[in-house]
Amino acid sequence: MKQLRSVFSGASVASKNLQWYGSSRCFSNKSTKSSSIDISGVYPPIPTPFTSNGQIDYVKLQENFHTWNASDFAGYVVMGSNGEAVSLKEDEKLDLVRNVKKMSKPTSTIIAGLGLPTTEQTIEICNRVAEEKTANAALIVSPSFYKGQMNELVLRKFYEDVADNSKLPIIVYSVPANTNLDLSSSLVTALAQHPNIIGLKDSGGDIAKISEIVYNVPKDFQVLAGSAGFMLPALLMGCVGGICALANVLGDQVCLLYRLFKDNDLKKAVALQQSLISPNYMVTRRFGVPGLKAAMDLKQGLYGGVCRAPLLSLNDVDEKVLVQTFAKCGYPLVR
Amino acid sequence: MKQLRSVFSGASVASKNLQWYGSSRCFSNKSTKSSSIDISGVYPPIPTPFTSNGQIDYVKLQENFHTWNASDFAGYVVMGSNGEAVSLKEDEKLDLVRNVKKMSKPTSTIIAGLGLPTTEQTIEICNRVAEEKTANAALIVSPSFYKGQMNELVLRKFYEDVADNSKLPIIVYSVPANTNLDLSSSLVTALAQHPNIIGLKDSGGDIAKISEIVYNVPKDFQVLAGSAGFMLPALLMGCVGGICALANVLGDQVCLLYRLFKDNDLKKAVALQQSLISPNYMVTRRFGVPGLKAAMDLKQGLYGGVCRAPLLSLNDVDEKVLVQTFAKCGYPLVR
Amino acid sequence: MKQLRSVFSGASVASKNLQWYGSSRCFSNKSTKSSSIDISGVYPPIPTPFTSNGQIDYVKLQENFHTWNASDFAGYVVMGSNGEAVSLKEDEKLDLVRNVKKMSKPTSTIIAGLGLPTTEQTIEICNRVAEEKTANAALIVSPSFYKGQMNELVLRKFYEDVADNSKLPIIVYSVPANTNLDLSSSLVTALAQHPNIIGLKDSGGDIAKISEIVYNVPKDFQVLAGSAGFMLPALLMGCVGGICALANVLGDQVCLLYRLFKDNDLKKAVALQQSLISPNYMVTRRFGVPGLKAAMDLKQGLYGGVCRAPLLSLNDVDEKVLVQTFAKCGYPLVR
Amino acid sequence: MKQLRSVFSGASVASKNLQWYGSSRCFSNKSTKSSSIDISGVYPPIPTPFTSNGQIDYVKLQENFHTWNASDFAGYVVMGSNGEAVSLKEDEKLDLVRNVKKMSKPTSTIIAGLGLPTTEQTIEICNRVAEEKTANAALIVSPSFYKGQMNELVLRKFYEDVADNSKLPIIVYSVPANTNLDLSSSLVTALAQHPNIIGLKDSGGDIAKISEIVYNVPKDFQVLAGSAGFMLPALLMGCVGGICALANVLGDQVCLLYRLFKDNDLKKAVALQQSLISPNYMVTRRFGVPGLKAAMDLKQGLYGGVCRAPLLSLNDVDEKVLVQTFAKCGYPLVR
Repeated sequence: MKQLRSVFSGASVASKNLQWYGSSRCFSNKSTKSSSIDISGVYPPIPTPFTSNGQIDYVKLQENFHTWNASDFAGYVVMGSNGEAVSLKEDEKLDLVRNVKKMSKPTSTIIAGLGLPTTEQTIEICNRVAEEKTANAALIVSPSFYKGQMNELVLRKFYEDVADNSKLPIIVYSVPANTNLDLSSSLVTALAQHPNIIGLKDSGGDIAKISEIVYNVPKDFQVLAGSAGFMLPALLMGCVGGICALANVLGDQVCLLYRLFKDNDLKKAVALQQSLISPNYMVTRRFGVPGLKAAMDLKQGLYGGVCRAPLLSLNDVDEKVLVQTFAKCGYPLVR
Repeated sequence: MKQLRSVFSGASVASKNLQWYGSSRCFSNKSTKSSSIDISGVYPPIPTPFTSNGQIDYVKLQENFHTWNASDFAGYVVMGSNGEAVSLKEDEKLDLVRNVKKMSKPTSTIIAGLGLPTTEQTIEICNRVAEEKTANAALIVSPSFYKGQMNELVLRKFYEDVADNSKLPIIVYSVPANTNLDLSSSLVTALAQHPNIIGLKDSGGDIAKISEIVYNVPKDFQVLAGSAGFMLPALLMGCVGGICALANVLGDQVCLLYRLFKDNDLKKAVALQQSLISPNYMVTRRFGVPGLKAAMDLKQGLYGGVCRAPLLSLNDVDEKVLVQTFAKCGYPLVR
Repeated sequence: MKQLRSVFSGASVASKNLQWYGSSRCFSNKSTKSSSIDISGVYPPIPTPFTSNGQIDYVKLQENFHTWNASDFAGYVVMGSNGEAVSLKEDEKLDLVRNVKKMSKPTSTIIAGLGLPTTEQTIEICNRVAEEKTANAALIVSPSFYKGQMNELVLRKFYEDVADNSKLPIIVYSVPANTNLDLSSSLVTALAQHPNIIGLKDSGGDIAKISEIVYNVPKDFQVLAGSAGFMLPALLMGCVGGICALANVLGDQVCLLYRLFKDNDLKKAVALQQSLISPNYMVTRRFGVPGLKAAMDLKQGLYGGVCRAPLLSLNDVDEKVLVQTFAKCGYPLVR
Repeated sequence: MKQLRSVFSGASVASKNLQWYGSSRCFSNKSTKSSSIDISGVYPPIPTPFTSNGQIDYVKLQENFHTWNASDFAGYVVMGSNGEAVSLKEDEKLDLVRNVKKMSKPTSTIIAGLGLPTTEQTIEICNRVAEEKTANAALIVSPSFYKGQMNELVLRKFYEDVADNSKLPIIVYSVPANTNLDLSSSLVTALAQHPNIIGLKDSGGDIAKISEIVYNVPKDFQVLAGSAGFMLPALLMGCVGGICALANVLGDQVCLLYRLFKDNDLKKAVALQQSLISPNYMVTRRFGVPGLKAAMDLKQGLYGGVCRAPLLSLNDVDEKVLVQTFAKCGYPLVR
């Protein structure tokens, strides 16, 4: 039988003899990767706040970071799906990641969502960010508009070409709820061999697929759960952390869940995980970014605000459902 | 926060002061259920062997039971999806479950797949089996042909009417790969209140949904993983066992996985779980019942044989893929 | 370019020198088919009426036939999806088709829905009906429970084995809304070569696929539209008629649509077709068999009644939507 | 019954007393629309040619226009899905539409694909193009990344906000193969009331839905078939033309199909339509833009060339399938 993957010794991964890349942590043991960044831990995929006239609101963002930096996050994901990346222009993106770098803690790992519809554009923006040293890794969503042509060969070449040419290490991003493409276990396994592809964010949540990927990839390829809804089972099966929309709102609880797992206090971890699923659903599948921003507006120290149209703010009926769901699970939202 | 569900104390469920129903184990603590059968543990959903002229082959079935009874199964599921239930006539079904009762161990819990397209037919066959005392519970697949009309109201009434009138306790069965209907968390939560609905077999594998269900249902409503592909994370999140096609072939391994979890030996459990996912995929999604029967034909002491048409036997190319996948994961199939 | 199929000369198909098979009309010209039944024209797929205690209500059925026989139908489809075939037992089916044969006009072509989950059961019931000479052709829905294994090879062998052994000519039935399987153009084209497979009922409604099939199949392979929602464009592209749930309620209108097309009075045909789409939607996709039966209950001379559970009768709110939709399009439903 | 829509008198739409908007044709009769452009007829959605170093190749584009301008097109669609719009930067788009305006005939109606992920960006680019007077109408694809939130309310507000603020008339674009969103009949019917929303391009191909839309919208709301695969049935049911990828390759044939329909020569039209379906499938669903460009490379006077990565050129095996399919239907592709 294949050698046992050290599922519970993941903590040691970020231990001694660190060779720093930017401010990120890295692996101590022999790596197959060209840059050995440790991306374990919990990351909120931060939403982008906007002023009433539609500009990025850096004052509010600073306030949010004041709150977030008090949590035990490993770092931040900027311009993920929850950051409304598709609604930002290139200059806004570069500016946003610069500000996130400044506002976050020096030890925070910054993962920037930099996937664009073409291979060339993706490489170009990765290298601009790499030059500015404002992020430690690039999260690359699969191109999806021409989904009928996005077979395994095309997607493999896309990711490998990006990885070959990007000065930032690459994290593959599978988010079928947005792209209608669920990157297969065999595709991810193939990509995991590339020295500059260091990990996967899987938001699909098929725990069998995630487990199969962990089983098949090199030991230093790091898989992150893409949601707080299944983070604990994903950690159990060998994921090293999570990028969780819910962490924007319930940062301490998601960090606690991670900590309980690392401390092998599974009984408490299971109870905590169970209580987070319905709230998580409200700020992801059910109400999306508007739901996330509404929940933030109902938490002291956090600002959500409006989304860029066509996304609308949550209406009163939906907000009530969201508030009741959080309350029922033990997380009252009150300003 | 809601009270902690005793996830790891599930073992105690089947402990002292048992009140027996047939040969099945039952709950010691106060139950909301009319019949308190314990369905925890591992069950193979046994395939139905056929002779060359298309009859049920009870000689071969007896041989299989000789092998299976040596494993530590909690019982057997007969006439599940893997039992080709939809291809069996009513008389064949009654006869098959009679034989399974005889061939299995006295302590085995027998779960019979008895869902039929109408409410009335389903109740009728449940009560015929109840009268013959050949099964301990009925596994009821959701009706699915008129899927456009199978809304939550219709499905709820179906299950409640069956449960009201069936003398066998009911286990709800959600198997979207076959029915294209994924029973929702809210539907299952509502059904779980019924005194004669004792559990759920979930073959969809959405671990967040499964966890949410466990969180919301009464403590004595028992959820079973519907596949070996995600049994460990499901057990972690509060499932009490699994009905696993793979257990027909790798019975000892699936039972060991359950045992390692109960013994809290999670490190080994994770490694074992990971190694079972690809083989499991071969005998479920990828090659279905023909794949399962082919794998059984390649194991000493087991007979698979042909399926009822239109299902065809695995061709040579597919069988090679299956054999290689098992071998790669440490489970060589050789006759 | 391939030879022009005689799209508008379809009427000649059922003309002189008929060789009768039962009461059905047949082709005059050289056929590739073993039995040359003409299935052109409009067919209602009749719902099965039930008494309050759940038996087939032949008194009400006779009343319905009294109404239906006054329309210009080519015949009747019994035990289609709208006939709740999956909810009927074998004896009920044989009895029902016997009664339909008696109640319909001598010249009516009777098409019986005889698809069952296995190849053998399907052949067996086809031959029992053939022996009783109560139907002219068998409509065979694709098996679908094991949909993951229902690849083109399996489905082709299923239909060819049935066709090889059935004494009734076979009409292939693709109804993805119920089966989640859309029989491909290439599969149907292959099946169309078989001498005992005489046609297709396509309820999927992909007009490009339907047109491609008509283009590729032998001239005497007859394609029927499976719904009144797209019957006119289907006739234009070479279909020979339609099996339309709506024809149970608006029989004269659906027959008129067919007649206007045959008479090349397309301007009127288009206007009529457009007006039938929303009402058709109410008695098919939107409200299914309960919608169809509710509409029948609101028409003089027709009885709908209850469905077999789990299907429920239309509630008041939904019935109002149905009534308003019919009214808005010019078809007031009042008792 | 609702008044008969003049399906076959569509030709009169583009007749006398034209009030010109740019070079486009317009309606003679009283309009509910603020700008009365006639968009009837056939449009190729032109692919964007690229040089070997990835720039837009205007030399090759000019050659293509030399060929295309000899066909009887009503105009051109630039930066549709086939134009790789998602892969072009804003400056490239403005430049491309300027060149298309110059290269096309003075009487050509230019429809520019100008949908962007946000409402504001979409309005902005529409107004820039309007200012430059390089296009007559804007084709606006539905935003789709946040598909879980793209309910009818959100999409309606998006299109109405764009239409309120755009100086170009708006054509709604439903293309579920790319967006996984099929704009509903009720949404389109609501949007059709807006004075600046003049039409719909429907690439979904559900002929019942298309017919229902035509039945429900104001008479001067113009629906275009989004593919040559179902153009004739769509014309029959009241569409005024088609935007057809296949028209890039077989322009004369697609124009002839339109002409045969207008001349009421339906027998020939049906035969021609049938022969175009398989070739159309090759350059759309099956092989996408790479298939379209490959087919163009195999036609005298047309240049296809490479796509922007990640889209790859057709491999030899697929090209052979494409060539054989065209040949089989009577359209040999040879250089």
